[in-house]
This record gives sequence, structure tokens and C-alpha cells, in this order.
Amino acid sequence: MARLNDHYLKLAAGYLFPEISRRMGLFTKAHPKADVIKLGIGDVVLPLASAVREAMHLAIDEMATADGFRGYGPSEGYDFLREAIARNDFASRGVAIDASEIYTSDGSKCDSANIQEIFAADATLAVSDPVYPVYVDTNVMAGRTGDPDEKGRYAGIHYLPCTEESGFLPALPEEPVDLVYLCSPNNPTGMVAPKEELQKWVDWARGSDAILLFDAAYERFIAEDVPHSIYEIEGARECAIEFRSFSKTAGFTGVRCAYIVIPEELMGKDSKGNSIPVSQLWSRRTNTKFNGISYPVQRGAAAIYSEEGEKEVQANVDYYMANASLILDGLGKAGFTTFGGVNAPYVWLKTPGGIDSWEFFDLLLEKTNVVGTPGSGFGACGEGYFRLSAFGMRERVEEAILRITRSFG
Amino acid sequence: MARLNDHYLKLAAGYLFPEISRRMGLFTKAHPKADVIKLGIGDVVLPLASAVREAMHLAIDEMATADGFRGYGPSEGYDFLREAIARNDFASRGVAIDASEIYTSDGSKCDSANIQEIFAADATLAVSDPVYPVYVDTNVMAGRTGDPDEKGRYAGIHYLPCTEESGFLPALPEEPVDLVYLCSPNNPTGMVAPKEELQKWVDWARGSDAILLFDAAYERFIAEDVPHSIYEIEGARECAIEFRSFSKTAGFTGVRCAYIVIPEELMGKDSKGNSIPVSQLWSRRTNTKFNGISYPVQRGAAAIYSEEGEKEVQANVDYYMANASLILDGLGKAGFTTFGGVNAPYVWLKTPGGIDSWEFFDLLLEKTNVVGTPGSGFGACGEGYFRLSAFGMRERVEEAILRITRSFG
Repeated sequence: MARLNDHYLKLAAGYLFPEISRRMGLFTKAHPKADVIKLGIGDVVLPLASAVREAMHLAIDEMATADGFRGYGPSEGYDFLREAIARNDFASRGVAIDASEIYTSDGSKCDSANIQEIFAADATLAVSDPVYPVYVDTNVMAGRTGDPDEKGRYAGIHYLPCTEESGFLPALPEEPVDLVYLCSPNNPTGMVAPKEELQKWVDWARGSDAILLFDAAYERFIAEDVPHSIYEIEGARECAIEFRSFSKTAGFTGVRCAYIVIPEELMGKDSKGNSIPVSQLWSRRTNTKFNGISYPVQRGAAAIYSEEGEKEVQANVDYYMANASLILDGLGKAGFTTFGGVNAPYVWLKTPGGIDSWEFFDLLLEKTNVVGTPGSGFGACGEGYFRLSAFGMRERVEEAILRITRSFG
Repeated sequence: MARLNDHYLKLAAGYLFPEISRRMGLFTKAHPKADVIKLGIGDVVLPLASAVREAMHLAIDEMATADGFRGYGPSEGYDFLREAIARNDFASRGVAIDASEIYTSDGSKCDSANIQEIFAADATLAVSDPVYPVYVDTNVMAGRTGDPDEKGRYAGIHYLPCTEESGFLPALPEEPVDLVYLCSPNNPTGMVAPKEELQKWVDWARGSDAILLFDAAYERFIAEDVPHSIYEIEGARECAIEFRSFSKTAGFTGVRCAYIVIPEELMGKDSKGNSIPVSQLWSRRTNTKFNGISYPVQRGAAAIYSEEGEKEVQANVDYYMANASLILDGLGKAGFTTFGGVNAPYVWLKTPGGIDSWEFFDLLLEKTNVVGTPGSGFGACGEGYFRLSAFGMRERVEEAILRITRSFG
């Protein structure tokens, strides 16, 4: 039989979210009348912005004629979208990112999963703990790790604990690594890294020849005065790749569009020690393995930056962040210790009485029919914590909080 | 500096199609008034089918309300699409493929690029020569090869020459390999494998524990009585993965949708020799690295199977195959030796006077302002051949053929 990539077999029992679905399925089967409220998977619920829908309709109509038909587009994305991104997400904040440094894709999950491919098979990496599982799992699949220990930590990965004591911010790695995955605003903790913290990372990366893989998928939810982009930090163009997503702002979880930024100056080295632009490899990957995203989707994404689109996105963000406030308030009243929820649509709570995360998952589901995400699913340091997402319809969030305060208050 | 995957640096000067674009760009810069006809990249030109557009419009409208909104969908695709595929592309031909064995994606290029990931890092492979470059390049990038020789053949890959003498069909590999990429109807030669030929491959694969990666992206263009699916062959469920695409039939090159089939029975082995279902790894990959395709795109793809959609697809196929006939006829009259073009939208021609493929590319562009694809771009055995695509508007194809017969006839 053909030989398989058995690094896959090192992966723990199933990706976190399918496991949540499985448990939820069992619960609803046992309690078919239960009114389950999902604040687990961070999936948005508000309708797709009208500016986006209009632009998508127009793009589809364009394709009704041979003249307007669009076949293969540039794998990196159409200029109209890349330029709109450069102008609105960067230039408007005083950050110089050229459209040619922007690579659009069908999702930040895909980008943060695929990026590791362009680095050496034995590249070393550091991740926060807790962490978005995709960063870890894709490196396991690529063979950069050994087996997991009893806490689920894979040999060969440098884990950077994020604890209450450190404000859930990771410390610099104690050993040199090639790659560090950072996420701010953070999924799952909802915490955000202030400017001086990011400057510390950039200075360290430049000094130790590491590359920061900076996931800013939630930047739009920032309310306080902290950087939205790693490129607001002096020197970041020489050491960082940034991930951005339209998923949570304009309702794109089902429409699919995101992008990554690879600055021209960012270099890596080959095995002979030569400097090679990282963008050269990513561009090659993009052109060889990908054919760009759906044209109507690109038009829809560009419409996010129209006047109408901007307003709708802001309204969505405000709506979800008002949910986050309700959750924070409610949990506080019910006696929970909470974090996050101010600059990110996630609230990170300490499980009551120090019970473990999956135990709390089952307890919460049983007592309140509310689904959240066990912190331990994000790493060993997530044990004893739990994530609630602010992505829900208002009345459902209110109902969830009511049930929680009743049951736990 | 962070260490890069320098297997990428083994890749020859640039993916074929960007190189064509580059030369075309130079030509149109030098001859800004030239009326260039593109029969190079196999990109479709007919408008997007109305059934598809309608379904996409409806899907977008659905998302205008909180009730109709769709966020994250199943990574493998919605059941409505997978079931429509199973019913229409397989059951209708007497082939039993379950919807759960179908994994939808954003393109066959992506699927045929990504599939190698689930096999061992040192899995061995055989490819036809000439060959669709993606099969080769993605294995080079994954480190399964050495450097290319002067003909562009990478050390470690088993090349199966497809020559005029063998009817452009590859012979069985002389050494055992884990994986064989097969493509029928073939890109670039336009030739198709008859049933007994495919049976030979399936028998060999089962006998030698290999997996066939069967690219059937062009099956819809088959006119003669040959298999459309590898699963029409006895035993194929135990040894083959199949790739299908909506790109060329319903105008999806810019909309993006395709799928692969991995039968439940298909097994590979891990390094300890245990049997593992191949679908287990692909499913894990799909769920970890991908979030499914855009919901409106999935609705559009499903509409291909409606009565109206079916008719439109057939009309598209007929239109392009009538182009192929015109090309075959015209080239014949102009004295060219041609192949393919009967069961596939590609015509494979011998360059006149035995000049090399890129020389003919430049000559054709210079003399007739027609762009085609140099056979050598597909492999050493493609040298001295040239591909013309039937994907063009009728009057443009007629004009191209007129110019070619005038210049070469």
C-alpha cells in the first residue's frame, strides 16, 4: 500500500471544533427539545452586509455576458481588492504596505495553515499556550514535531505559557527559533498586546533572526489605543508576516475571504545561508497551488471598504462588542473571573471551583444548554479556562447570560 | 534569518503560464496594435451559465437575513452539493460513489497540488511526460525530488514518456512507486485512455500497492465510448483517487469549484505497516487547513445539475468541441500533424520542421498573433509539440485558424 504521511497520526483525537459538534450532537439527541445556545465556535450570525451583497450580485451579472465574463484571475487576487486593502487597512493608519505585498485567499485558517510550507522542514517554532490549534496541528502534519505528551504538548514545539500572572501575554522564547506565531487580539483569551509589548517582539525577532507570524484576524474589534497591525511597529517589515480576515467583520465566515501581508524586505535563508525574499516563495506557492478566490467574492470583499460597507462593518463590530459587554457584566455578576472581551469578541473565563475545562463544558451544556469552548482545547495552559464568543444574536446572548447567572450566580 | 524550504529553489524558472503571460506582455508592448488571440491558457470564455447565476443570486439573498445567513459550513462541502454530485456524476453512470466520499474544494489545481501532503515525505511517484506541471512542481516543493537535469526532469521522479508511437499513453512504471498521476482526457495532449488501458492501470496498482491519482477534470468533453470515471473500472475503489472540476463546463475558472473522490476502501500504510484509510487523512487535512468553499459558489455548482444547468453545460461543451473540430480541420489543411481534440478541448500539434516548442511559440505569435502553449512546458517529451486550446469565442477561433492556414498553409 502507498505510504502515508503518518505525522498526521500524531494528532490528538480530533480537531477541537468537530469534537464540540460531536458532544453537542449527543446532547441534542438525548434532549431533543433543549433550546441550545451556541457561543462556542466563533461564527458570526448577523446578515451579510448589503454593500457586500450588492457588489456580489453585480459581479455575477457582469459574468452573464462574454464581455464581462471573468475566468482565471491573478492567483494573488485582483488589483482592485489588493489596492483597496492597502489604502484602507494600512495607509489610513499611516502604515506603508504596497498592494503587491498583499496576497488574498479564502481564509485566515487556510493562510495560517499554509504559511509553514515555505519554511524549512526542520524549522523550529514557538507558539503561545493557549493557542489557535491550526498553528500547531499544521506543523505536526508537516513533521516538525514529535509525539504529544500527556498534556497534549508536542515534542519540538516551544510553548510560551500565557497565564493570569503575565496578563496572558507570552514571554520571549528562551531558545532561538525560526518562527513565532503571535495572535493579537488573541484567540482564545481575548487579550491584546500593547505597543511596547509588540516592539519587544519585533526587536527580539530582528536580533535573533526569527520571523513573527502575526495573526491580526480580530484587529477590527480593538477599542483601546493599541496597534492594529504589526507594521505599526518600527522594524516589523523586516521580521513579520501578518494575517487578516474579513470573516468576523462583514460576515464572511461562509463567503470566505482573507489576506496575508509579506513585506518586500522580509528575508529568509536557504540551506546554503543565502538570503531569499520570503515573498518569492509565497508567490510561487500561490501561483502553483492556488487559482485565486472567486471573482464575486473579491468584489464583495472590496465593497467592505465602500462608505456603505464601512458603516455596516462598524455596526456589526459594535453589535458584537455590545454582546461582549453583556457577557462580561453577566459573568461578573454570577461571580466568574473573566478576561478579554474589551478589544476582542471573546471572553475568557476561569472555570468555577477549578474544575477542568471539558467538565465545565458538559456542566454548562447540561445546566444552561449553552455551548462554549473548553480552554484546554487550546493548550495545556487553557486548562481551567473557558471561552465564550460574543458572536450571537442579542436576544440569544441575553438569554444565555440570564441562564448562566441563574444557574451559577 | 528564518530557514526557508529551499526545495522551492529547485523549481525551474517560473510556472509555465506566468512565463507565457510574460512573453505575451513583451510582445504586446512591442506591438501595441496587434490583435492577439489567446488559445494558450485553457481558460473558458462563454458567460457563466444562467442557472448558476440564478442560484448564486438566491444564495446571496438568503444571506440578507439572520435566519437565512450561513456562516461556517462543513469543510468538505454542504450535503446538497455532495449529494447532487454523487447522483449526477456517478450514480447516473452506474458508479456507486457515496456523497461522504466526495470532498468539494476551490479547484482541481488546488486538489491535485494538495493531495501529495497526505503521503509520506519520501513517497515515490510516477508522472506522464508531458504532464500538467502542478503534479510535478508540488512534489518538488515538498522535497520529494532532487534537482532538475538539463531537460527539466527532476531526480527521483519516474517519468513515463507519452510519445506518438504509444498513442501518447504512458506505459506502466518499471519500478514500484507509491503514487501515479494519470490524466484522461489528457492535458496537454487531448488524448483519452480507453477502458482496457485503465483496467491495466487498476490491475497494476492493486498488484503493486500503488495509488492512482486520476485527474478527470475534462471528462465532460468525452465524445467516444470510453470511461468518464476511473471508478467505472473494476477494482478502482481500492486503488484510486479521482479529481473533477466545474471549471471548464459551466464557466467556473473564475468562480472556483471542484471536488475529489476518495473511496472508503482506499487504504495506505503508515511507517509501521498498519493500514489506514486514506480518507481519514484527507478529512483531517480538509478540516484543519480549509473551511469549505463560499456558500453562494456551492449553490451555483449544485445548479449545474438542474435541468436548465445541464442543458447550458452541454451547450458550452458542444460549443468548445465545435471549436476543437475547426482547429483540427484548419491545422490539417495547413499541413500540421495533430492529435487530441476529439474527446478533449485541447489539440496537440507537432511543430513544423521539428523546431522547438518555444521557438514555435514565438514564431506563431509573431506571424499570426496567436498565443498557444509550448509542449516543452509540460515536459521533455512535449518538446517539438504545441498545445492549442479550444476555449475561445467562435469568431476568434475562426480568425486564428484563418491566420494560421494563411501563414503556414
